[in-house]
This record gives sequence, C-alpha cells and structure tokens, in this order.
Amino acid sequence: MRNRDTASRPRTRPQPRPDAERDTSPAFPSAEGGPDVLSRELLAPYLHAQAADFLRSLRLHRESGQDPQGAADAAEAVHALRGSARRISGTLHTFRPLTDTGWADTLRAELAWLSGTLAREHAYAARLTRLLGALNRLSGTGGADAGPAAVPAARGGGAEHPGSLTVGAARAGALLERQLTLARTRAHSAALQALGSSRFHAVADAVALLASDVPLGPAAAAPAAEVLAPLAVGAEQRLKEAVAALPLGRASHPYNAEALVHGLAPAPGGETQDAPWHHVRLLLRLHRYAQEVVAAPASTLPAAQALDRHRDAAEAATAAASAARTPRIAPATAYALGVLHADQRHEVEAARFAFQQVWQREAAKTP
Amino acid sequence: MRNRDTASRPRTRPQPRPDAERDTSPAFPSAEGGPDVLSRELLAPYLHAQAADFLRSLRLHRESGQDPQGAADAAEAVHALRGSARRISGTLHTFRPLTDTGWADTLRAELAWLSGTLAREHAYAARLTRLLGALNRLSGTGGADAGPAAVPAARGGGAEHPGSLTVGAARAGALLERQLTLARTRAHSAALQALGSSRFHAVADAVALLASDVPLGPAAAAPAAEVLAPLAVGAEQRLKEAVAALPLGRASHPYNAEALVHGLAPAPGGETQDAPWHHVRLLLRLHRYAQEVVAAPASTLPAAQALDRHRDAAEAATAAASAARTPRIAPATAYALGVLHADQRHEVEAARFAFQQVWQREAAKTP
Repeated sequence: MRNRDTASRPRTRPQPRPDAERDTSPAFPSAEGGPDVLSRELLAPYLHAQAADFLRSLRLHRESGQDPQGAADAAEAVHALRGSARRISGTLHTFRPLTDTGWADTLRAELAWLSGTLAREHAYAARLTRLLGALNRLSGTGGADAGPAAVPAARGGGAEHPGSLTVGAARAGALLERQLTLARTRAHSAALQALGSSRFHAVADAVALLASDVPLGPAAAAPAAEVLAPLAVGAEQRLKEAVAALPLGRASHPYNAEALVHGLAPAPGGETQDAPWHHVRLLLRLHRYAQEVVAAPASTLPAAQALDRHRDAAEAATAAASAARTPRIAPATAYALGVLHADQRHEVEAARFAFQQVWQREAAKTP
Repeated sequence: MRNRDTASRPRTRPQPRPDAERDTSPAFPSAEGGPDVLSRELLAPYLHAQAADFLRSLRLHRESGQDPQGAADAAEAVHALRGSARRISGTLHTFRPLTDTGWADTLRAELAWLSGTLAREHAYAARLTRLLGALNRLSGTGGADAGPAAVPAARGGGAEHPGSLTVGAARAGALLERQLTLARTRAHSAALQALGSSRFHAVADAVALLASDVPLGPAAAAPAAEVLAPLAVGAEQRLKEAVAALPLGRASHPYNAEALVHGLAPAPGGETQDAPWHHVRLLLRLHRYAQEVVAAPASTLPAAQALDRHRDAAEAATAAASAARTPRIAPATAYALGVLHADQRHEVEAARFAFQQVWQREAAKTP
C-alpha cells in the first residue's frame, strides 16, 4: 500500500530506527504496493536501515562512560547491536538467492560469531536472576535478594536440622551466584575483547558497506511478487511445518509431566526433547524478520515470548543440575538444586503450554 | 421413587452389599418416596447394611490364611472394613440429631481410631509405589522396579561423575524403600495388634448391635422430608461453602506454580495451603455417604478421585522431603529427592487443576 520514495532509491540511507526490536509497524513499502516493486526495492532499504542501526549502536557503545549509567548504556547498546546483527543475518539467510551469496555467507558466519559472543554475558546475568528469583519464591524469603542476603544463614546452622531446607536454598543460591557471576565476568571480558579485535573491525566494515550499498545478485532485479515474496512465504512455510511436527497435542494437556520426564536419567532427556522447540524459536524469528522486509506486521510476538521463556527455563534448569555436580556440596544444597531444577523444567512445560495456546488462537484467526 | 418393604421394617437386616465402595445405585428407598417415609426408615437400613458389611469383612479377615493369597484377602478385608467404618462414622456425624448422641459420639471416636490405625499400612505401601514410580519416570529406567534393581548402580560409582544423577535416583529409591517399608511393617503390626485388642472387640460389639438395632433419638420418628433430608442438604451445603472458599480461580490457570511456592521454606507452605483441599476431600466423602442414605446417586466420584490424588501426592512430597533430612546421605541422593519432592508437588497442583475442572463441569450441569 505504501510505496515511498526510499523504495525507488535503494542507495538512500534511511533514518535509524530508535527501537528496531519493538517497532513492527510497516516502515517499508509493502509487497502489495504493486506489481512493479522490485525485490531489491524491499530488501535493500531494510538492510540499509539495519546496518545503520548496527553502526549507531556501535557508536553508542564506544561513547558510553565507565560510570554505572555508562555501563547501563553500554549494555543497552550491545543489546541493540545484537538485534541488528540478528536481523541482517536472518535476512541474508531467508533472501540469500537475491544476494551476492559468497559475500552474504561470509558476513552471516561473522555475524553469528559476533552475536554468540555478545549474547553470553546477558544470558548468564538473566539466568542468575531467574534462578535466584525461583529460589526466593521456593524459600519464601520474599525480597529480590535471596542470594547474598541468605548466605549468612548458610554459614550458621548444621545441615540436618529441620531448617536445613532454607539453609540448602541459601547455599544453592550462593553457589549459583558464584558460578554464574564468574561465567558472566568471563563473558564480559570475551565480549570486550571481541569488540576490540581486528575480526570485529572487518565485520563493522562489511556492515558499513551494507549501510549504503547491498551486494545483490541478478535475481534482486526481478519483481518482488515473483522472487522476494515467495522467499518470505518459504520462511513462513518452514515455521509452520516445524510447528506441525511439535507435540502440541501433548502440550495442550496441562500438567502432562513431559518436561521433567527422564530428568534424573544419565543423559537427561531435556536437551533432546527441547531441541525441536528451540528450532521453532529460531524459525519464528526468521519469519518475523522476513515479514519486516515485506512490511507485513507479524503477530507472532506472544509465541516468540513463550519460546524465549522456554529457552531461558531450559537453560536455567541445566545450570541448576550442573551446579549440583559441584564436588563437596552439602546434601541440603543438592536437595535445593534438585527442587530448583524440577521447578525450571516445570517452567519449560508451562512455556510449551503457553506457546500451544497462542499458536492455536492465531491459527483459529487465520481463515 | 422406590419404597421397598425394608423401609417400613427398620429392624430387618438387609443383605450385605458386596461392594459398598463402588455401588452407588440407590439400594434404599428414596427420600422422594413420599411424605410418609420416616427419618429412621432411611437411616436405620443404611446403618444396618454398613454394620453387616463391617462384620462380614471382619470374618473374612479372620478366615484369611497365611499364604500370599491369604495376605491379599486380608488386605482386601481390611480395605472393606475401613470403608464400612468410614460410612458408619460419617453417617453418625451427618445425621447425629437423629441418633442417641452419647452412644453415637462414642462409637464415632472409636471408629476414627480404628480407621486411622488400619489405614496406615496401605498408605505407606501406596506412597512407596507412587514415589518409586515417579523416580522410575524421572530416571528413565522404564520398568516398575527402580528401587531394588537400581541399588547395585548406587554402589558402583562415585558421587560426582556425570552419571551421578542416576546414582542419586537409585540411592533415593533405596532410601525411600528402606524408610517406608519399615514404616509399613510397623503399621502392619500395629493394625494386627489393634484387631486383637479388647478396645477393638468393644467396637465390634457396638457395630454388631448396629447391625440389628440402631440406637436412635426421638427425632428419628419425624418424617424424613422434615428432618433427615435437611441434614443431608446441610452436608451438601458445607461442601459447597468449603469449595467456594478454595482458590479455584488460581487452580484453573495451569502451571500457576502455587503448589511448590515456599517449597524450601523452614515451615514448608505445602501443609498450610493443602489443608483446605484436604478438608473438602472429607466433606465430599460425608456428602457422598449422606447421598447414599437418601439413595440419591452423587456424581462426585471424579472430584473425590482428584482430591485423593491431591492427598497422596502431598504426602508423597512430604515423604521425599523428610527422607532428604536423613543424616549422611550423598549429595546426589539429596538432589534426586529434591527433584522428586518438586515432582510430587506438581502432582498436587495438577490434582487441584483436575478438581477445579470436574467441579466447574458439574456446576455447569446443575441448573
């Protein structure tokens, strides 16, 4: 419907979008704009905008100070940088036949390395928050500071008196805090190192090129309706097929106890049974980005949030099980970690139920 | 509708009903049989029949041999004995104003002692089966013999290698088996001792009197529609009020994580939050027995089963937590018990969800 000037001037640099993650309103001409719209007239402006966002976030990160506000700004900049990197990478994946594929494949691999490296610090911090929150809930200590605040109690009493459950929870919190804070600090150093590396500078250079000039292939000159739109439909199709293969029937029955099944097996079943859900999470994201390119609003946010929660809970459950393998921990600590593990696997199951509900609701709307 | 001869001959001893627990078809004249039916004409035959069942079960128990079949027969006889004792006691409670209250109160107290003593053996056995079944499911060992079969593995390896989760599950199973088998054996001896005691013989004598002659009060001579029926309605009213006070709204949201909240607190919240549900379970039973007296079929069996499951899971969760306080257990054992505890608390939550579903469905049927 909207066919703005930018569509016919692919080399024009669009204004940076202040919040690319949340803004899903159509900022680019729709594929329905007319049969004359060329594939590159949709693809190039989107990549320009994402590249500009990437460079702006990078500048903000460099300008952030050393004070607490600066650290918060830096974290936000890294968050935005990851969002842009994911969008560029996802778009180059879905619309690969329209690009200079050799160049696109190289950039995608480098962006994957960058996203992975930058994601870790935040993931460890979020995981710790989730686990301490759950321990708080489980031990009824109320406030948001179960970890450090509860540590003195852990030193006070023996392991076998009636209050040992709380002692165990406090010790488990202290153990998780130690382990995940260490992992987070290492991830922070690794991220800083990555951002200062020559490898990263090469990525930034490639993205800078993308901000003004997208290396496209001959197919990009074909009408969007003939080439770009079918590629976007392909992304949606892959998503739908992967969802159809999920055990949604089982997930629709609350308390099916599926997520914790084999939770104490030598090779915990969690990772195997989680994989198809994690895969749908990625396909959902690729679908969303493809919809952004064709400027069709995708109503998949609740589904994506359910699968984010699924992923977070699954990883938190793994962290609790992993902490329980720490040598020389007290039985009460191990007990608390067992409860915590099961609690998070229950969250995994709840997230699947939520996804199933959202998906069926959306499916019911579609004619 | 049915107003059989027995109704006008309250002292006639009805035929023993072979399966009083499952048979909810109207075996006694309905309160709707007519305005002429007296309260005692409904109450006395019901108590006669239950007393006869009690005495028959007692005889079967005495006649059971020492071989395995005999032990199974004895267990079944005790089960039936408990069912009759509960029905007599519940009926004397609900219809107390119709009875010789001094006599009724004494018998009820003695039947409560007897039921409690006889229930324990079966409860420990069922709890062990439930917990070993859950451990089996959690450790993915398949078969129904996780306990003893898995014990050799527990002796094989160290506590901290990657397989320690399974080792922990096996050790937890062995620990629970030891503790609950001991408790069961003690309960068995206590039950045998009780059945041979002079206190029990006094109860049996009182029940034998009941089989032919119910000590009733003057109110029993009033029309059933005026006295007995309102008492039955009162039982239903108490049930409905107690259900209305349950957090059914919360229970209707699957995965509300309520059952495990404060699961690691010094005074685990479980017992406090479970109490109103346990209370409804008892009121549901009293309502069912009152409906049996007025010969109105009560469609509350699924609701009762959900609350039985609620009670069983709550007690199993407590047993797992209690086993985790055993001195000198390995961390892997404690971890497995923590997972098991949380698993059973999820079962508690699932049972509440099931009860809520059943109750709303029944409520929707009632105009």
